[in-house]
Amino acid sequence: MQTAEIIAIGSELLAPDRTDTNSLWLTEKLNSIGIEVRLKTIVGDDDARLEQAIKDAVKRSKVVITTGGLGPTEDDVTRKVAARALGRRLLLDEDVLAVIRERFQAFGRTMPERNSRQAMVIDGSEVLPNPNGSAPGLFIEHEGAAVALLPGPPREMRPMFVDYVQARLAARAGAVRVVRRMLRVAGFGESALDEQIAPIYTQFENPQTTILFNNTEIEIHLTAKAKTEAEAQALLDDLTGRLEERLGNAIFSFCGEKMEEVIGLKLAVGGYTLAVAESCTGGLIAERLTDVPGSSKYFVEGVVAYSNEAKVRTLNVDRDLIRRNGAVSVEVDEAMADGIRKRAQSDFGISVTGIAGPDGGSKEKPVGLVYIALSDEAHTESKRLMLPGDRQLVRWRASQAALDLLRRRLI
Amino acid sequence: MQTAEIIAIGSELLAPDRTDTNSLWLTEKLNSIGIEVRLKTIVGDDDARLEQAIKDAVKRSKVVITTGGLGPTEDDVTRKVAARALGRRLLLDEDVLAVIRERFQAFGRTMPERNSRQAMVIDGSEVLPNPNGSAPGLFIEHEGAAVALLPGPPREMRPMFVDYVQARLAARAGAVRVVRRMLRVAGFGESALDEQIAPIYTQFENPQTTILFNNTEIEIHLTAKAKTEAEAQALLDDLTGRLEERLGNAIFSFCGEKMEEVIGLKLAVGGYTLAVAESCTGGLIAERLTDVPGSSKYFVEGVVAYSNEAKVRTLNVDRDLIRRNGAVSVEVDEAMADGIRKRAQSDFGISVTGIAGPDGGSKEKPVGLVYIALSDEAHTESKRLMLPGDRQLVRWRASQAALDLLRRRLI
Repeated sequence: MQTAEIIAIGSELLAPDRTDTNSLWLTEKLNSIGIEVRLKTIVGDDDARLEQAIKDAVKRSKVVITTGGLGPTEDDVTRKVAARALGRRLLLDEDVLAVIRERFQAFGRTMPERNSRQAMVIDGSEVLPNPNGSAPGLFIEHEGAAVALLPGPPREMRPMFVDYVQARLAARAGAVRVVRRMLRVAGFGESALDEQIAPIYTQFENPQTTILFNNTEIEIHLTAKAKTEAEAQALLDDLTGRLEERLGNAIFSFCGEKMEEVIGLKLAVGGYTLAVAESCTGGLIAERLTDVPGSSKYFVEGVVAYSNEAKVRTLNVDRDLIRRNGAVSVEVDEAMADGIRKRAQSDFGISVTGIAGPDGGSKEKPVGLVYIALSDEAHTESKRLMLPGDRQLVRWRASQAALDLLRRRLI
Repeated sequence: MQTAEIIAIGSELLAPDRTDTNSLWLTEKLNSIGIEVRLKTIVGDDDARLEQAIKDAVKRSKVVITTGGLGPTEDDVTRKVAARALGRRLLLDEDVLAVIRERFQAFGRTMPERNSRQAMVIDGSEVLPNPNGSAPGLFIEHEGAAVALLPGPPREMRPMFVDYVQARLAARAGAVRVVRRMLRVAGFGESALDEQIAPIYTQFENPQTTILFNNTEIEIHLTAKAKTEAEAQALLDDLTGRLEERLGNAIFSFCGEKMEEVIGLKLAVGGYTLAVAESCTGGLIAERLTDVPGSSKYFVEGVVAYSNEAKVRTLNVDRDLIRRNGAVSVEVDEAMADGIRKRAQSDFGISVTGIAGPDGGSKEKPVGLVYIALSDEAHTESKRLMLPGDRQLVRWRASQAALDLLRRRLI
C-alpha cells in the first residue's frame, strides 16, 4: 500500500478552536484508492517550519498533499516555500494570470494586484484549475514523489482533488482497494442503535463498522478492504443487507444522501407538493428542503410562525385553541400543519412547535418537548417528542423527525 | 516567546472520521502560559516516523508534548521510540511497577503481565503520576527542551498536564502572554479586504494578523504577545482601532459574535420587531435569526415565498408586478419587504429574491443575481448584488448581505 502524508498549512489551524477537516476528507479519498495516510502535519504560515515539513515529507512518502496557503495575501506562503523546499524556481504563468483576471471580470470586478501572486507556479509543475476560487493548485512529480498543493477552502479543494488529482494518484497506487459506505438512520439514539446492530456487525472483521454521532446525524460507517473495488463492494452489500434486515425503514440513506435529498426525490417523482409551518425550528426545515437544487418543483411555501399572532393570521390557527392548549401542544401543531397545507394548496403540510431552550421550559412543558405533524387531504397525524441536547441540537432533531414523518408517509 | 509542538500518536487518529481534540485543549493551555504552538503532527503507531518526529521536534522547539501510545499493548510504542529518539536507555522502574500493581489490586484484579511495560521509564526522566489510568506520564529535560509524554485519553491527559506539567512549563516560559481576537467583516471579499488593510497590519509583527475565509465568513484573526495579558490586550486594542478607522462599520463583530447575534442585540435593545420574506434563501435568514436564544422577543414571522403564488397570496405582491418584472427583480423584492412588514405589523421587513443556482440562470439574470431589500414605515431601500459561489454560498452570502443591510440601518 502506498503511503501519503498531508500537510495542512495556516496559522489559524494552530489556534485552540480550529480543527483541520480537509485532512479527514482527503484521508477518505486516499484510502478509497488504496493509499494509506501515515502522517499529518499542521503548520502555521511559517516559512522555516513549512520548508522543513515539505522536505521531510517528500523524502519519506510517495504522496504529499498540502492544503492551504495559496491565497493572494502576504501570509500565503505555500507556493514560495514549496518551491524552495523542492529546490525549484517560481515563475509567473501568464496563462494562469489571464484566467484569474477573467474570473474577476466575470463578476464585474478588476483583479486586485495582489492576486497576481496566485499566478506564480513552481517550475515543472502542472497547474490544477480552480473553478471555485482564484487560487489554482499545483501538481509536481518530484524525485519519485507526487506532490499536490491544494487550496484550503473545502469547496475549492474538494473538486480540485476529485477532478485533477485522484486519477493521477490512483494510477500510481497498488492493488488494495478500501471502500467505505455510510448509512444514515433516523429514529434511533446512538446506544439504542448499537444495541440493535452490534450482534450483527461484530461478526465481521472486514468490513469494519463504526457508529458515529456526527454533529447531528447518527451514521453507520462501513469500511471494506479487498483486492478489487468490486470485491470490496460485495462485502459491503452483504453487511448492508444484514443491517437492513434488522433496521428496515429506519435506514434512509445508503450512499450519503441527506434526508432532505431523499424526500425531495420522492416528492419530485410522485409529483407532490409540500409546504411547511415552523415555530421552534425557525425556518430550518424550509432551509434544509430548499438547499436541494430543483426544490422549487415541490416546495411551495414556508411560514415561520414564531409569534402566536403569526400562527393565527397566517396559518389560520384558532386563537382559542392556542389559549386553551398553549402554542406548544398537539392541537396547535396539527392546526398549523392543516393551516399551511390549505394556505399553500399543497399535497402535504408539515409543522413543528416546541421548546428549543435554553429558556421557556416549564415543569409540564420542559425544554426539548416538541410536536411534529403531517397533514394531507385525507388525515393529519402527529407525534410528541422529548429531544435531548442544546438549542441547536433540539432544533435539528425536531427538523429531522418532522422530515422523517413525511419520508415514512411517502414510502 | 517559547515555541511548542504537539505530537499526537495513534493510528486511529489517521482514520477519516477521527480528529485529535487533545491538541486543541493543550494549545489553549499552552497559549495561556505564554507558549505558542508552532506545529502539530499526527502520527500512527509507526516506529520510524514517530522517532523522526520526536527527533525533529526537540531540535526546533523548546517544548514538545506527545499524547497517546503509553498503553500496555504491542502497538503502544511511545516510551520505546522516544527513548531511542532521545538517545537514552529505557529502564524498568520498580516503584512505578509497584504503583501499577497496586492500582490493579485496588480493583480486585491481578496486573496483566503486559502492563509491566508501562513501568519502563526513560533514563533521566521524571514520572508523572496518573490517578485516572494505568499509564504514567514522563517528563524529560533534554538538551534545553522540555519533553512531556502524556497518555491519550483526555480524562487521563488533562489532569496530568494541569497537575504536573503546566507549572514546570510556565516556569520556563518566562513572562510572555498570548491573547487572540477575531473580527468579522461584512461587505468585502477576501482580497478586497486584504487590499484595504494590508498597509496597516503589515506594519505590525505583533499583533500578528491572519485573514481567514471560514466557510462563509471573512474573519480577521489577531494574535498579540506581551509580558502581561493587559499589555497584549492594549496591543490588540491599538491595531483594532486602526483597522476600524479604515473599515468603519464594515466590522460588525469584535469578539466572535455572529451577525444574527449582533442584530438580535440591536433589535432587542431598541425594542424593534422584525419579519422576513425569503425566496432564494429559502428560510436561511429566519433560521439564522431564530438560532439566537431569546429571538422570539424581536422575530415575529418569516415567510418562505418560494412560488410566485406564495408571493402573491402571503406577501401581497401584485401579480402584474411579477409578470412585468419577473420574480427576481428590484420591484418584486421591495414589494416582498413591504408585504411581510405589513403582514407582521413589524418595525422592519427584510426580503431576498434571487437565483442561487445551479439552474435557473439566464443571460439577463444569471446565477448569483440577488436583490435584498429593507422596509420600514418611512421608506424601503434595496440593493442588487452579483454573488459568486455555489448554491449554498450564494444563499449564505445573500442572507448575510440582507442582515447587514438591517445592521447598518440600526447603527
